[in-house]
Amino acid sequence: MIIVLRPDATKKDIDHIITKVKKLGLKAMVSRGVERTIIGVIGEEDVLRMRPLEAFPGVEKVMPILKPYKLVSREFRGKSTVVDVDGVRIGGKKIAVMAGPCSVEDLKGLMKIGKAVKKSGATILRGGAFKPRTSPYSFQGLGEEGLKYLKEVKEATGLKIVTEVMDIRDIPLIEEYADILQVGARNMQNFNLLKEVGLSKKPVLLKRGISATVKELLMSAEYVLANGNFNCMLCERGIRTFEDSTRFTLDLNAVPLIKKMSHLPVIVDPSHGTGKWELVSSMSRAAIAAGADGLIVEVHHSPEDAYSDGAQSLVPDKFKEMMEALAPVAKAVGREL
Amino acid sequence: MIIVLRPDATKKDIDHIITKVKKLGLKAMVSRGVERTIIGVIGEEDVLRMRPLEAFPGVEKVMPILKPYKLVSREFRGKSTVVDVDGVRIGGKKIAVMAGPCSVEDLKGLMKIGKAVKKSGATILRGGAFKPRTSPYSFQGLGEEGLKYLKEVKEATGLKIVTEVMDIRDIPLIEEYADILQVGARNMQNFNLLKEVGLSKKPVLLKRGISATVKELLMSAEYVLANGNFNCMLCERGIRTFEDSTRFTLDLNAVPLIKKMSHLPVIVDPSHGTGKWELVSSMSRAAIAAGADGLIVEVHHSPEDAYSDGAQSLVPDKFKEMMEALAPVAKAVGREL
Amino acid sequence: MIIVLRPDATKKDIDHIITKVKKLGLKAMVSRGVERTIIGVIGEEDVLRMRPLEAFPGVEKVMPILKPYKLVSREFRGKSTVVDVDGVRIGGKKIAVMAGPCSVEDLKGLMKIGKAVKKSGATILRGGAFKPRTSPYSFQGLGEEGLKYLKEVKEATGLKIVTEVMDIRDIPLIEEYADILQVGARNMQNFNLLKEVGLSKKPVLLKRGISATVKELLMSAEYVLANGNFNCMLCERGIRTFEDSTRFTLDLNAVPLIKKMSHLPVIVDPSHGTGKWELVSSMSRAAIAAGADGLIVEVHHSPEDAYSDGAQSLVPDKFKEMMEALAPVAKAVGREL
Amino acid sequence: MIIVLRPDATKKDIDHIITKVKKLGLKAMVSRGVERTIIGVIGEEDVLRMRPLEAFPGVEKVMPILKPYKLVSREFRGKSTVVDVDGVRIGGKKIAVMAGPCSVEDLKGLMKIGKAVKKSGATILRGGAFKPRTSPYSFQGLGEEGLKYLKEVKEATGLKIVTEVMDIRDIPLIEEYADILQVGARNMQNFNLLKEVGLSKKPVLLKRGISATVKELLMSAEYVLANGNFNCMLCERGIRTFEDSTRFTLDLNAVPLIKKMSHLPVIVDPSHGTGKWELVSSMSRAAIAAGADGLIVEVHHSPEDAYSDGAQSLVPDKFKEMMEALAPVAKAVGREL
Repeated sequence: MIIVLRPDATKKDIDHIITKVKKLGLKAMVSRGVERTIIGVIGEEDVLRMRPLEAFPGVEKVMPILKPYKLVSREFRGKSTVVDVDGVRIGGKKIAVMAGPCSVEDLKGLMKIGKAVKKSGATILRGGAFKPRTSPYSFQGLGEEGLKYLKEVKEATGLKIVTEVMDIRDIPLIEEYADILQVGARNMQNFNLLKEVGLSKKPVLLKRGISATVKELLMSAEYVLANGNFNCMLCERGIRTFEDSTRFTLDLNAVPLIKKMSHLPVIVDPSHGTGKWELVSSMSRAAIAAGADGLIVEVHHSPEDAYSDGAQSLVPDKFKEMMEALAPVAKAVGREL
Repeated sequence: MIIVLRPDATKKDIDHIITKVKKLGLKAMVSRGVERTIIGVIGEEDVLRMRPLEAFPGVEKVMPILKPYKLVSREFRGKSTVVDVDGVRIGGKKIAVMAGPCSVEDLKGLMKIGKAVKKSGATILRGGAFKPRTSPYSFQGLGEEGLKYLKEVKEATGLKIVTEVMDIRDIPLIEEYADILQVGARNMQNFNLLKEVGLSKKPVLLKRGISATVKELLMSAEYVLANGNFNCMLCERGIRTFEDSTRFTLDLNAVPLIKKMSHLPVIVDPSHGTGKWELVSSMSRAAIAAGADGLIVEVHHSPEDAYSDGAQSLVPDKFKEMMEALAPVAKAVGREL
Repeated sequence: MIIVLRPDATKKDIDHIITKVKKLGLKAMVSRGVERTIIGVIGEEDVLRMRPLEAFPGVEKVMPILKPYKLVSREFRGKSTVVDVDGVRIGGKKIAVMAGPCSVEDLKGLMKIGKAVKKSGATILRGGAFKPRTSPYSFQGLGEEGLKYLKEVKEATGLKIVTEVMDIRDIPLIEEYADILQVGARNMQNFNLLKEVGLSKKPVLLKRGISATVKELLMSAEYVLANGNFNCMLCERGIRTFEDSTRFTLDLNAVPLIKKMSHLPVIVDPSHGTGKWELVSSMSRAAIAAGADGLIVEVHHSPEDAYSDGAQSLVPDKFKEMMEALAPVAKAVGREL
Repeated sequence: MIIVLRPDATKKDIDHIITKVKKLGLKAMVSRGVERTIIGVIGEEDVLRMRPLEAFPGVEKVMPILKPYKLVSREFRGKSTVVDVDGVRIGGKKIAVMAGPCSVEDLKGLMKIGKAVKKSGATILRGGAFKPRTSPYSFQGLGEEGLKYLKEVKEATGLKIVTEVMDIRDIPLIEEYADILQVGARNMQNFNLLKEVGLSKKPVLLKRGISATVKELLMSAEYVLANGNFNCMLCERGIRTFEDSTRFTLDLNAVPLIKKMSHLPVIVDPSHGTGKWELVSSMSRAAIAAGADGLIVEVHHSPEDAYSDGAQSLVPDKFKEMMEALAPVAKAVGREL
């Protein structure tokens, strides 16, 4: 950690800081420059993170040297993590495709969608039983009934299930049905929820908050790993910017960036990341070309009847086309669908 | 609701939309322009919000006419809401000042701060017992012990208490101690939490998410009111932008804007909104001049020893100066401290 | 154009608006809904764009139906534009790769870079002779001397030249040397400059401003086309967001989006769009997979000696690797390098 | 400057950096920590700004210690600058109010507005003769004719004139008429224009770009001062964020922040900063309470006939009310109108 002093910092200010630093078992190195004096602190930086050094008299700014996360970092593990979802491996050579409706609405429709996406090459079924909705007057999900429908489609197709957990109290119920617990963008910093899914035996799909930096996403994943669950996947799903022609701005820079910073698999959601079904296929190809380990895509057999997110859902035929166009791109970057 | 059709929309597309609209009990008015045909829909727009009209064939875009919130709108209530916090009225002529440390750390310190802020004119004590922290390795709050300290200071000073609720499971406990339940920025769209505090008898302070629009803040407040709790205050605490010289960008435009859109009181947090104690006093004056009904300010007797947010905390003497400089501004806009 | 009235708009307000609309030769259709009255305006919407309808008494909001651009729209032209840069065609099957240093620094280095990128498959040489720099104390470019070096490398390699125009007064000089006039991100809304390059016979590469929407980029291109120059290419080079681990957020959504909205070719700049050379190759692949027609990439033989942007420059060997990895991706999406 | 090395940096990498640093006449101090080695560089940091240190082998990141601007910094001058605009002093105790239409449209209207704002207490007339417009089809300003109208109103009222310079070629003409040269937000990084107004004898009003940081605004002002013109004022006029209920987000944090960083006067534009005339009066009060030295406000006698920005213009009566409500706020913060 580097402490930069104000031009008018006094000797007393400097001594005061050095004394505090030493008390914490760290070493302080003072370096006097032409216009500024700086103090370098050597030792376990974490001890200092908890101290508001900027509040000390004479301090202009404080610059951390080390990263605040440990367990999620690539350095910690060296090799890439492959998450095993009951036989479906995510993070290896094979691209994982999760597909299905935004919300689970009825068994018949879900079965139709499930069979179609399975046929086109998806291995995991997505679908929300508990839905976070901006308006209290919007459809809030079918709850346990929705989970049962997901299970029926799983039994019929062999698809694994990913579904969102919004409420800590629902975790035991959802664990009975789901193969992957999804933490949605709005809950990326719901730390108590992160701790609880960190205690679960089920793999976790953690979506990036719409205004979260990549570092904050990694810090949230750190909560999951620190509680014992290393089967964690990260999902880029678009961030909020000033651009209003798309629903969000899909930040594909984050894909190769996270792969360098962390050992965890990266999934991309081109449906939320664009908000327009016409852009989903192009951005799926871009995501895989950028190095993503998987995709999560909204598919609905009749988007105009969907209870949510119809405008960004592909019909099964378009999903099939998407998968066909994706295969050669996956191959071009040394992966397979 | 206005449905704008693509230039290549067919008669079949148009008939299909009209049929659907009529089935929902609404009236459709078709208007053919030079370059585009549009369909105006008359009736209860809410019925349509749940239909993904943009997914219909031939549709280019859909433009809602009405606001998606009802109970929080100024039109709904006409006059401004005054929230009564056990005798302290917020939203009337008198400006409410909430002050205290970011986290509750120990009784002695808290008592010192409480007495000081009371003396300078604060009427409500702030302090976190449960803390949302980016890192799993940071101080997470004292929990119930912290709540007890808050109560002791309340008894000694007469200050009311505002403290954050992070977890639904903690609500009954916090209700025993707090006078206002704070929902933090990270939980602004934790809809289950919003429902639960909507069922509480305690007033709610709802902080704006760092990337939430004013409309989304109002929609989240709609959850609280729709569950029966009309004693809800909104808090502007800075949004995330590209500017990196301050911790957040305090959006004071939101103050007069919300006052026009809604009847609920607006509180401003200049401590988080700037992240720098040197800017807090200026921005407090600006907030009141813009029309805010109250402030929530971080005060710590020894910021350099604070467990969190030291850099943005005022020492009690600076808080006193802030209050003294604020009084004439409040008077200049027809309010009082 | 749709004019939504306030709930309290009077008959007088409505009549006033209708009178004004009719005077402009347009037709007004009034539609009374349950909670709002709206007025649909039929006719040439452009006439109305110049009238501040929101300033009329009784008006709540105004919603345009039509797009404000004409010449750049896909509807205007139907097919995609292929820009012919003295024999190098951009916008067709072949991907155009522009490569070279950020700034032209000396002839020897530039020649080295030019020969290397040519060998790896680039067809256009990039290099700044006039440099927009944040600081008045930074290197501002070699000016005409730099242009001469570019020309020498062109003669030796056959590469075409793209270089930035910052000042209207320099256009005649730059036209003598360059094959493509680049308008930089900072000048995307320097409308007088846009008019002047619109009057030039040379093709234009228009870079998106760091906070410009896609619509604004198209409006700026409209200035170029409206002044007679249809040989215009658009460049996505990253937008400014809150994410600070990369220099900008490369908005690849913009690629398929612009291809749907406009007939103009789209170039992607992964060097500025990431700010980190380690991410450039991955994002080049993603850009082509998303549908881009070309790339503009910074290459420097000795980034640590570069006068600007060294951290995002590839060395020639890395550029060669990038091109080799790119070829199969281009093929996978039906293009060729 | 601090250079942080990668964990895998070799001794060769370190020696290479040290050699380069020493060659530049600087001193390098190596400090080996538990997880990282860092190199502190002592001496004139500016020499290093031009070297892309991040491109050196073994370097993880580079952190500058000093600010990149000099002449605009408060440290450079100590006291606050008061700009004398032909007798009207800006930056002292008296708040400067600039008011007038967005565009100069006709003499009669301008005279009406000029007389009205003068009567209400404005001392400077604003009005655009050259207008930057997003669309090539919008009104582009009256040019010299507009300047003549401004002069006529100046002669009749005694108001000074501020008007925008868009094109370097127009400077000599505008200097004949205007008392203050305004550089608009879109041109904040048009560095050649900055150099030219820096050579002018007229005071400059430099508006912040919609996506410029405060530091970048100061760097742009540095261009003006470095070319000899110290009569420079900075203008906060709203930044672009995700919030879409207002046209821009007025960043009032920037006011006290700039006053701490720089000696230059700060003007606030609540008209562009909100885009809604209903918010202008509240935000004017907030700006002055935050410490601004002046305001620039759009006033039009008939906003519904304005050629631009009608929705954010005050009618003269509302401007009068604004000024009356502003006076006690100015007094409350020790200023006067």
